[in-house]
Amino acid sequence: MHTTEARALLQAVQDGTISVEEAAARLSTTGHPQDGIAHLDTDRPRRTGQPEVIFGQGKRAEDIAQILQALHETGQTALATRVDPDKAAEVCAKLPDVVWHEQARILAYAADEPSPDVAIRGTIAVVSAGTSDLPVAEEAAIVAEAFGHPVDRYWDVGVAGIHRVLGHMDKLSKASVVIVVAGMEGALASVVAGMVPCPVIAVPTSVGYGASFGGIAALLGMLNSCAAGVSVVNIDNGFGAATQATRINRKRVE
Amino acid sequence: MHTTEARALLQAVQDGTISVEEAAARLSTTGHPQDGIAHLDTDRPRRTGQPEVIFGQGKRAEDIAQILQALHETGQTALATRVDPDKAAEVCAKLPDVVWHEQARILAYAADEPSPDVAIRGTIAVVSAGTSDLPVAEEAAIVAEAFGHPVDRYWDVGVAGIHRVLGHMDKLSKASVVIVVAGMEGALASVVAGMVPCPVIAVPTSVGYGASFGGIAALLGMLNSCAAGVSVVNIDNGFGAATQATRINRKRVE
Amino acid sequence: MHTTEARALLQAVQDGTISVEEAAARLSTTGHPQDGIAHLDTDRPRRTGQPEVIFGQGKRAEDIAQILQALHETGQTALATRVDPDKAAEVCAKLPDVVWHEQARILAYAADEPSPDVAIRGTIAVVSAGTSDLPVAEEAAIVAEAFGHPVDRYWDVGVAGIHRVLGHMDKLSKASVVIVVAGMEGALASVVAGMVPCPVIAVPTSVGYGASFGGIAALLGMLNSCAAGVSVVNIDNGFGAATQATRINRKRVE
Amino acid sequence: MHTTEARALLQAVQDGTISVEEAAARLSTTGHPQDGIAHLDTDRPRRTGQPEVIFGQGKRAEDIAQILQALHETGQTALATRVDPDKAAEVCAKLPDVVWHEQARILAYAADEPSPDVAIRGTIAVVSAGTSDLPVAEEAAIVAEAFGHPVDRYWDVGVAGIHRVLGHMDKLSKASVVIVVAGMEGALASVVAGMVPCPVIAVPTSVGYGASFGGIAALLGMLNSCAAGVSVVNIDNGFGAATQATRINRKRVE
Amino acid sequence: MHTTEARALLQAVQDGTISVEEAAARLSTTGHPQDGIAHLDTDRPRRTGQPEVIFGQGKRAEDIAQILQALHETGQTALATRVDPDKAAEVCAKLPDVVWHEQARILAYAADEPSPDVAIRGTIAVVSAGTSDLPVAEEAAIVAEAFGHPVDRYWDVGVAGIHRVLGHMDKLSKASVVIVVAGMEGALASVVAGMVPCPVIAVPTSVGYGASFGGIAALLGMLNSCAAGVSVVNIDNGFGAATQATRINRKRVE
Amino acid sequence: MHTTEARALLQAVQDGTISVEEAAARLSTTGHPQDGIAHLDTDRPRRTGQPEVIFGQGKRAEDIAQILQALHETGQTALATRVDPDKAAEVCAKLPDVVWHEQARILAYAADEPSPDVAIRGTIAVVSAGTSDLPVAEEAAIVAEAFGHPVDRYWDVGVAGIHRVLGHMDKLSKASVVIVVAGMEGALASVVAGMVPCPVIAVPTSVGYGASFGGIAALLGMLNSCAAGVSVVNIDNGFGAATQATRINRKRVE
Amino acid sequence: MHTTEARALLQAVQDGTISVEEAAARLSTTGHPQDGIAHLDTDRPRRTGQPEVIFGQGKRAEDIAQILQALHETGQTALATRVDPDKAAEVCAKLPDVVWHEQARILAYAADEPSPDVAIRGTIAVVSAGTSDLPVAEEAAIVAEAFGHPVDRYWDVGVAGIHRVLGHMDKLSKASVVIVVAGMEGALASVVAGMVPCPVIAVPTSVGYGASFGGIAALLGMLNSCAAGVSVVNIDNGFGAATQATRINRKRVE
Amino acid sequence: MHTTEARALLQAVQDGTISVEEAAARLSTTGHPQDGIAHLDTDRPRRTGQPEVIFGQGKRAEDIAQILQALHETGQTALATRVDPDKAAEVCAKLPDVVWHEQARILAYAADEPSPDVAIRGTIAVVSAGTSDLPVAEEAAIVAEAFGHPVDRYWDVGVAGIHRVLGHMDKLSKASVVIVVAGMEGALASVVAGMVPCPVIAVPTSVGYGASFGGIAALLGMLNSCAAGVSVVNIDNGFGAATQATRINRKRVE
Repeated sequence: MHTTEARALLQAVQDGTISVEEAAARLSTTGHPQDGIAHLDTDRPRRTGQPEVIFGQGKRAEDIAQILQALHETGQTALATRVDPDKAAEVCAKLPDVVWHEQARILAYAADEPSPDVAIRGTIAVVSAGTSDLPVAEEAAIVAEAFGHPVDRYWDVGVAGIHRVLGHMDKLSKASVVIVVAGMEGALASVVAGMVPCPVIAVPTSVGYGASFGGIAALLGMLNSCAAGVSVVNIDNGFGAATQATRINRKRVE
Repeated sequence: MHTTEARALLQAVQDGTISVEEAAARLSTTGHPQDGIAHLDTDRPRRTGQPEVIFGQGKRAEDIAQILQALHETGQTALATRVDPDKAAEVCAKLPDVVWHEQARILAYAADEPSPDVAIRGTIAVVSAGTSDLPVAEEAAIVAEAFGHPVDRYWDVGVAGIHRVLGHMDKLSKASVVIVVAGMEGALASVVAGMVPCPVIAVPTSVGYGASFGGIAALLGMLNSCAAGVSVVNIDNGFGAATQATRINRKRVE
Repeated sequence: MHTTEARALLQAVQDGTISVEEAAARLSTTGHPQDGIAHLDTDRPRRTGQPEVIFGQGKRAEDIAQILQALHETGQTALATRVDPDKAAEVCAKLPDVVWHEQARILAYAADEPSPDVAIRGTIAVVSAGTSDLPVAEEAAIVAEAFGHPVDRYWDVGVAGIHRVLGHMDKLSKASVVIVVAGMEGALASVVAGMVPCPVIAVPTSVGYGASFGGIAALLGMLNSCAAGVSVVNIDNGFGAATQATRINRKRVE
Repeated sequence: MHTTEARALLQAVQDGTISVEEAAARLSTTGHPQDGIAHLDTDRPRRTGQPEVIFGQGKRAEDIAQILQALHETGQTALATRVDPDKAAEVCAKLPDVVWHEQARILAYAADEPSPDVAIRGTIAVVSAGTSDLPVAEEAAIVAEAFGHPVDRYWDVGVAGIHRVLGHMDKLSKASVVIVVAGMEGALASVVAGMVPCPVIAVPTSVGYGASFGGIAALLGMLNSCAAGVSVVNIDNGFGAATQATRINRKRVE
Repeated sequence: MHTTEARALLQAVQDGTISVEEAAARLSTTGHPQDGIAHLDTDRPRRTGQPEVIFGQGKRAEDIAQILQALHETGQTALATRVDPDKAAEVCAKLPDVVWHEQARILAYAADEPSPDVAIRGTIAVVSAGTSDLPVAEEAAIVAEAFGHPVDRYWDVGVAGIHRVLGHMDKLSKASVVIVVAGMEGALASVVAGMVPCPVIAVPTSVGYGASFGGIAALLGMLNSCAAGVSVVNIDNGFGAATQATRINRKRVE
Repeated sequence: MHTTEARALLQAVQDGTISVEEAAARLSTTGHPQDGIAHLDTDRPRRTGQPEVIFGQGKRAEDIAQILQALHETGQTALATRVDPDKAAEVCAKLPDVVWHEQARILAYAADEPSPDVAIRGTIAVVSAGTSDLPVAEEAAIVAEAFGHPVDRYWDVGVAGIHRVLGHMDKLSKASVVIVVAGMEGALASVVAGMVPCPVIAVPTSVGYGASFGGIAALLGMLNSCAAGVSVVNIDNGFGAATQATRINRKRVE
Repeated sequence: MHTTEARALLQAVQDGTISVEEAAARLSTTGHPQDGIAHLDTDRPRRTGQPEVIFGQGKRAEDIAQILQALHETGQTALATRVDPDKAAEVCAKLPDVVWHEQARILAYAADEPSPDVAIRGTIAVVSAGTSDLPVAEEAAIVAEAFGHPVDRYWDVGVAGIHRVLGHMDKLSKASVVIVVAGMEGALASVVAGMVPCPVIAVPTSVGYGASFGGIAALLGMLNSCAAGVSVVNIDNGFGAATQATRINRKRVE
Repeated sequence: MHTTEARALLQAVQDGTISVEEAAARLSTTGHPQDGIAHLDTDRPRRTGQPEVIFGQGKRAEDIAQILQALHETGQTALATRVDPDKAAEVCAKLPDVVWHEQARILAYAADEPSPDVAIRGTIAVVSAGTSDLPVAEEAAIVAEAFGHPVDRYWDVGVAGIHRVLGHMDKLSKASVVIVVAGMEGALASVVAGMVPCPVIAVPTSVGYGASFGGIAALLGMLNSCAAGVSVVNIDNGFGAATQATRINRKRVE
């Protein structure tokens, strides 16, 4: 609880407009009562402007469905990432309004009412080095779109044929933020960041074999970029890139 | 060279207002002629909005001085990072207008004229977990300030006493971007990102010993943050965090 | 064999109340005769106050059943950890008194008689960061309970929403020992240890992907905790955390 | 701030015995006002029962002296670890009452008055495998003693001559907690934990060469101990072992 | 686009023999229009003398077939590597002229007309240490042959019986380039490079277990070769060795 | 070819008792003509006193059968290691005299005639820490026995109950060589080597989980043993331990 | 010794034109008699076309001088790499004809007579990403020149300003082989290899900090290059790149 | 204490020829009373046939001198390894009979009387790949000689010129055990083990740079040797190789 809120609460206690018990309960910030195994953080949109998103990997279809439903009922856009096709089918059977994005492996349950106008700064560009990087790139793009941001996609423009990405620089230079998704050596992030004025969010992917070590080569390459304006998220973390890009692409809190 | 520029150039050739030779030279984009060992990228501010910055580590004082001078003459703010005190003294003796930021290990040579108005969105908050993280945190802060951005500093607020950072959340929540600098387990980045709506740039530091492995523990912790809105730069890379934060904190190119 | 026991034995030899052969056999401390592939350490409760526990992974159902039975016959509580459901069903068919804890993957065969009064100091709190950490957290909780200790569970209170764990601090501060189970960056251990006076046993889990490297990120984070009072067990080792917590929660040997 | 304290504070506000401003200040838990680079966590003894300890590595002698003095003035025992001899001499010149433990590399500034009776459960045993492990073992022993706990030392009893540690088992079995300090393969922790009923805190050291990788071999060995009742702290972290052992060796908070 | 080409193009614009729009389109080097998910780099043979090759792993059979067909229609030899047998059968059913190399896991679709005379310097020798290395060695051999180069194969001549490879030195010494394929410790590359005058391309394989770490042991061994004239490609990368060896075995561009 | 053999051969050429062609063929040491994919090293027993052994992993049953048969026909004992049960059944169906050792995963085809008297020095002891280590321990034992050496087995005597192995020291001290097989922290090797006068061959196994990293913890522990007289083979390499132990246990070549 | 040589030697023995003793000595291929600690491989030029080069690191100045002199006396070009300035001065004082290349850290002692005409195919291009990579790049260039090959240098053309290297593509495309020297993420190798038809030898350097891990990031990036025609040498191994490039740039042995 | 000794002791107690107290003291196997920081294992020669050797690294000269003297007084050969020159001079000044082996970094204090006849089986061959490996190779050789074994040295015979080691195979084949010392890729161990009948002890050295990672490349290469009869000791552990080789080269205990 922030200091200004605390002071208002204390004033209310002094004024007698709120009881000590109720004030103590509000100060106690455990929020939503614990329900079964999950402890939903329904206060998150207020604090961060972004809803909690379900990490679907390792959860059962029935659990995913139940949490999607619970989040939906709070009026938020409800998403589940890293859902495999079998579970997705099971969830969609239970919740017919949920949409399945196959390549991105995302289940999306739109809010009933449009969210209050989000002040968006511009377009998010998502750039992928190879076609094998698409599941991760699509995860980033779908999440950003679900959060209400316009997305431009640039697929298969890796540095082995550098002219491919150079041919898009006019448009990339006007994006609000660029997400670069690449496996193998991940060199695309450096090349793009050296050409555009906006921030570049680099997503290493596990595409590759041998000494790519499941994405470590691309991760290290991106962390050591010789270009300025690159920051990095976890391997294959399209979701994380999207939450960062949308935070960047919103107007600042005043 | 972007397509629109190319088309204008070609039109000029067709119109005869520019010779073939000159047009070929412009298309050939090597820019500033190579001078000695360094090949300055003086075109960078046009492309990225940020000047080239000298990586001082491993360079001789006389080389640093010469490149600072060369950058300064192009009208840009000229910076050198990771300069040790002896070299700094030597450079300052040659170039009396250069300022030495000791803790940040930065030499700064301000442009003679104020840069054209940069449209800034808000304040950059720099948060450090411990006092040993200060050289890296100051590197981030000084670079951001040299690029014309207002910076708020929050020192020594690591999670071993979580109330310290919680006590600053009111102000952190209003920043345009937060840079979190932490060594050891680097947990501070997750805690902050779960509380604020703006992007968090996490900088792992090499502070620690044993299984911190020179900052790997903090790096991995930050890459695996359970909170959304975190992206990461290289270990001890305060400079990289600043270039990313200032890209975020500028108005978007239209 | 401890010195005092040895001296008593030697005295008995001198006194003629025990033969040289028998004394030699007692000094020879191989204990329980080797039976098939396993060499049960039935002397362990006397030395350490804790029974041997079967590591079920990689063992056949019939072997698990046989060793459970053998341990049970010595009067000890017999447990097998890391047993998958198929094997568990097979064992339970053979030994109907054995109980199967599905989420914790533990088979438990209670002693026929209550163990002699164990002097317990207080309550063991088990705290998990996310719902995916529950199999490991439950392994810790079930083992501690089987050893006769009271356990309080706190699920899904990771640092992305720090208020969740802060809301439980009153109770956590009164525990005798806290087991913190967390994957990804494992930051929860540091936050808890900075708030409570009792020892914290940190259990990194393999929950995560990419640069979590199967739990290494959480492991390193916990080993490098900036808070005092944290010690760490192997990745996913809920069992190890329980054996350590119960040693702590017993009265000291006089 | 815990719930019970909060409720009392709110009651006082309602009762008018405390002003809103003062209550807000107390709720705002940043504690000690920030003074220069350090932000002392003077509330730590209340929360955890242990004072903040200065990590001396990388700090200047004058900073160490100043923080020692500040901690001392709050009435706490003030310690600084990992202080090299030159800095220690400088600090002792400024603060004559500070004691320098050379092998442990610790500066200790005792509180003027004895701390209130701490309820201690028993003795802490510190066991080292080789003589090269002594600086780490002494760091553990000195910190525990400074916190008011009795310590027994067992030096140079590594497993290459297993009879050495076996000869001490009578006494080790009666300790309240055993700290095992070992480099190279770190096998001593497993051997001890298999023989004693109390918890074993294992401290891997960086003693060794080649494939010891600065203590990784010992660290991994201890994390993978086949014996129950072992938890591990960071490489060379004698301080961490002491803070954990003293938490274990105190009476539980009621 | 190279400078000489650019100058010719500009001259044509000045001469009016080409319109500004067409010239701009040619300068814009994005090449082949993007078609679905793949962005074929059909300009690659002009730049590098080698066609693009499809990395089959992770692609669907229908995609492989479609891209093979598209490459074939440009008149190039079309290859797909790392294709598993099921997909291969599916592709061959659609494209009967495609040939399946089972051990090498390669699909090859020969160009309709022989490629213009490639000036070849000599023979490429492919040497394998063990029979388990054959899939990688055959991948190298088949690709080189598909690119029009003569290949000699030497199988199962690892250093455990050094006379085997020594017996072939007469012929190996006359090769234009030698590809050495080896797993485990990869020592064969050093032995061969110390005996022949031509370049050695070393391919570590993932053959081995335990501390071979999926080929890391062989990779490091080859990178640290005490012999001159060794350069290394990724683990199991027979394809990469072939593209390098064929570049070496061509006459130089004048 | 050794110098003395070479001189004899040259003398025969000079004497005319052997033709130049035949001498050249003998000097050319490629040995057994290459037959299909395998290049048998039938000269190995002459050089090293040990037959080539087939590494069964990754080979097809028909290939294993064919090479076993070929080795058998040269009069040698023929073994194949790391053969899974399905392949073993297939081979045994083709070659009824081949014996299948299930736990050790070895196929053995005894020589028709007893090998010439091998001069054996004593007994090889194989010691395993846990029951999960048995497949590796049996691989070592079966290979040593197939090579004609007497083997004593000591199973499940890990250091968590140190008395178990101490109880066997009388017999272990008389072995010619001890093979210690252990996973997890691998401490058993150090304890044994500190007690016996003969060489200890340590075999780390991949038994364990989490930070055992597939046997790395045990491997590093054994390489860093604080006891003298320990040398180490690859993880899970029971075969390698046996070839080393049998070389040690033979009389020296005069 | 090759078969054809062996046959000639045997014929000479049969013909009586050479004694058995002398023939035996020639077959015995230990070459140059062992002299002190070094065993010069003076036969290397005959086998590989390249002289042995002294690895100066860790050798004393007097040893370097002595071996340089010994190599020189065999008529070969004699080089010593990785020589630090102090040792270089000492060697040059002893051997005034030796030349010291400071940046490349190489001592060169030219042969008295020009080597027999080496058939060179073209030019070797050496490209460096940054100025800090120059010591390694110069090591490559100087060795290649000392071996008699023409070298073109392209310094400071890293991908942060991609136009710099694109501006040189005309010339790079005509090289016989390109050596790319880069630290940090090493992306330059991929960009160049996608543009030129000749082989690219990639040299990762240890330039960088933090997660560059002393050159591992660049090494992995280069091994995982998405472009064809790249092979890699050890970190900082300019010497190795030169020996490989000069093998490539020679005419093939007929 | 072994069972047979224990039985004799018990018999003496029963017979009254020894008091209970004395017997208890003998059973208590802590041996030599603890003296200062070191706890000498003077019983080691009885158990293992080898004296304790001082690991000099990190010890002060005066401590080394004192322990050498103490070991000498027990009648054993006393050695200290890894002693740097300054400390060595200091020790030799105190103990004039101590001999300093500079290259091996060993101090040796011979026993006053020849040790009882040790039954030696043959010669130990020590083979080094390069001259930089000599300190480690000499450490192995000097220790073996100090333990009374004959040693043959073969220096600088690495696989880059394979004929060098092949030229020594006649003599190597007759050794009792071969110690192979090599850095970089460590291939020499495999080549030798494939040619000789005796055990090969492989010692990886930290000689190399870049991806040798301080000896890891050689260590992994040796652990993954494709040849039988290789076991490995720690990086740079010449001492460990000697203790293993001398155990092998002794007659077996009967």
